[in-house]
Amino acid sequence: MKVAVDAMGGDFAPRVTVEGAVKASKEYNIEVLLVGVEDLIKKEFAKLNHSRARVNVINATEAIGMGEGILSFRKKKKSSIRVGTQLVKDGEADAFVSIGNTAAVVYMSRKILGALKGVDKPALSLLVPNLKGLTLLIDVGANVNCRPHHLEQFAVMGHTFMKSVLGIKTPRIGLMSVGEEETKGNELTKEAFDRLEASPLNFIGNVEGKDIYSGKADVIVSDGFTGNVALKVSEGMVETFFYMARTEVMKNFFAKIGFFLMKRNLKRIYKKIDYSEYGGAQLLGINGVCIIGHGRSNSNAVKSAVGLARDFVLNKVQDKIQQEIAELSHRLSEIEG
Amino acid sequence: MKVAVDAMGGDFAPRVTVEGAVKASKEYNIEVLLVGVEDLIKKEFAKLNHSRARVNVINATEAIGMGEGILSFRKKKKSSIRVGTQLVKDGEADAFVSIGNTAAVVYMSRKILGALKGVDKPALSLLVPNLKGLTLLIDVGANVNCRPHHLEQFAVMGHTFMKSVLGIKTPRIGLMSVGEEETKGNELTKEAFDRLEASPLNFIGNVEGKDIYSGKADVIVSDGFTGNVALKVSEGMVETFFYMARTEVMKNFFAKIGFFLMKRNLKRIYKKIDYSEYGGAQLLGINGVCIIGHGRSNSNAVKSAVGLARDFVLNKVQDKIQQEIAELSHRLSEIEG
Repeated sequence: MKVAVDAMGGDFAPRVTVEGAVKASKEYNIEVLLVGVEDLIKKEFAKLNHSRARVNVINATEAIGMGEGILSFRKKKKSSIRVGTQLVKDGEADAFVSIGNTAAVVYMSRKILGALKGVDKPALSLLVPNLKGLTLLIDVGANVNCRPHHLEQFAVMGHTFMKSVLGIKTPRIGLMSVGEEETKGNELTKEAFDRLEASPLNFIGNVEGKDIYSGKADVIVSDGFTGNVALKVSEGMVETFFYMARTEVMKNFFAKIGFFLMKRNLKRIYKKIDYSEYGGAQLLGINGVCIIGHGRSNSNAVKSAVGLARDFVLNKVQDKIQQEIAELSHRLSEIEG
Repeated sequence: MKVAVDAMGGDFAPRVTVEGAVKASKEYNIEVLLVGVEDLIKKEFAKLNHSRARVNVINATEAIGMGEGILSFRKKKKSSIRVGTQLVKDGEADAFVSIGNTAAVVYMSRKILGALKGVDKPALSLLVPNLKGLTLLIDVGANVNCRPHHLEQFAVMGHTFMKSVLGIKTPRIGLMSVGEEETKGNELTKEAFDRLEASPLNFIGNVEGKDIYSGKADVIVSDGFTGNVALKVSEGMVETFFYMARTEVMKNFFAKIGFFLMKRNLKRIYKKIDYSEYGGAQLLGINGVCIIGHGRSNSNAVKSAVGLARDFVLNKVQDKIQQEIAELSHRLSEIEG
């Protein structure tokens, strides 16, 4: 198996991306293609112990920055994200991993790889940790305007992912809303509720914002606008809490000692709730495998993202999604016709 | 001034509501009308030191539970929420405070008090703590389906509240979206963006979920669906974090000591980020003053909610909102023609 890694993406590129790629190649015994500015990659590579690592470099002379928008995506014909996606399209790589500009990866995947047959809107999904395990949020930002049947497709794709990659037999599907009762929600979710209830999925009804962390559902479905806001609220909350803790602790001698004694445990909690540890977001419903990690990922997180890409390929998730979506349209056409 | 308090609402009623009402009457030197089942209220009242407190009881024989829906709101003609709201309508009370069923208070206020002239959708707003001060979120759940001009009205109401109650001269208004750039957002927010940019408000553009806690904006505007999800994600996150901290700490002897030494500081942080401390949510744009506190409020939080109601009345917030909304429609009619 060959996984292409965007060497130029993320806050600490190309250092962490090259390190992560080498680690991944060794640990998973796969070939990694590092896509980016050749000289820079080789310089980083030379610093590492890369015996046993199967790593090759694919030159891409441009990089897309975190703040850049659609004009750059189009203009930079030699960006590492475009070249990496094209490798998947051409069958030169089995998957593409980037910790760079999320919007650029979503744009390029749609443009170059296209959606799977029957999928109206490929969606971005992310595993977040909860008290008992992991919950998949779908969509976390690829589609800000959705119709009810899109949410239904998201549910099918999330179901398939959790079943084939995490091995959950009948994933519990929750619909993000403003209250548990069936009558709670906006126009979009009320119609999506009826569709999900009629589906053969294990639909457990509406869930609320707090249920992201309660572990009540294995998959939580929402439009990409709501999902993105929810995710960024969490990020802000964690950062604020740790900032407050540091400030508060510095005020008091005993608290300082207490903090010192608890430091390892607090770090462990931070790691647990920091979703950059979980390998990154997956584009579901695209005709190819694309994983997008958090920009602040370290080399271990890059390695995890490559590992997730590998699991994705081995489990043939996209094939299964295409099959499940075809069954969904078949059921719907039977009901309608 | 007379403030009516729903004695039957919240997780610990009528104990904390009666205690809070007595505290508020003493501290703010106002008359409090306790609305609810007379016998129960009097029993609680007798337990307290109520010298100097001016408290009267208004009998209401029914209570609406936290999980009850619109059918109960309609059926229970003698509910404390209905009787309390009616007191405001009849001029018997200047404001109504409840820590009970939010949906019931919103429903009853709309029905009995009605919207201010020119306000299409009264909205529920909430002050949340950030690193530097307080941010007002509007709407946090009263209106799950919104059009762009509703968000514009929410911005005007939020602006007026922060100016008149918190004394911020030109409150910074942010629009909740999925990225800071003007081009980011869904159909609703993109049109609202243009409207806000053309308004005389101090509009600082799009903000993201994480900015609830960064203090970047004084007012963050969203539809009630998004606002409610964002709020409940925060709640869930805080609860999960403290649960994890307790569990993690119990695993290790040194961490236990550390936790013990830090306990007071952690509690202080919890208090800082627990928005039930900040007096509760306000219904803006209603023809009367209604404050809704969190169901888990203790007696101090009930007292704060009454204090917020008093500030609201003293600052004539609703009058000012009506005036600002009239100016908004005037400007819009001038632009249109």
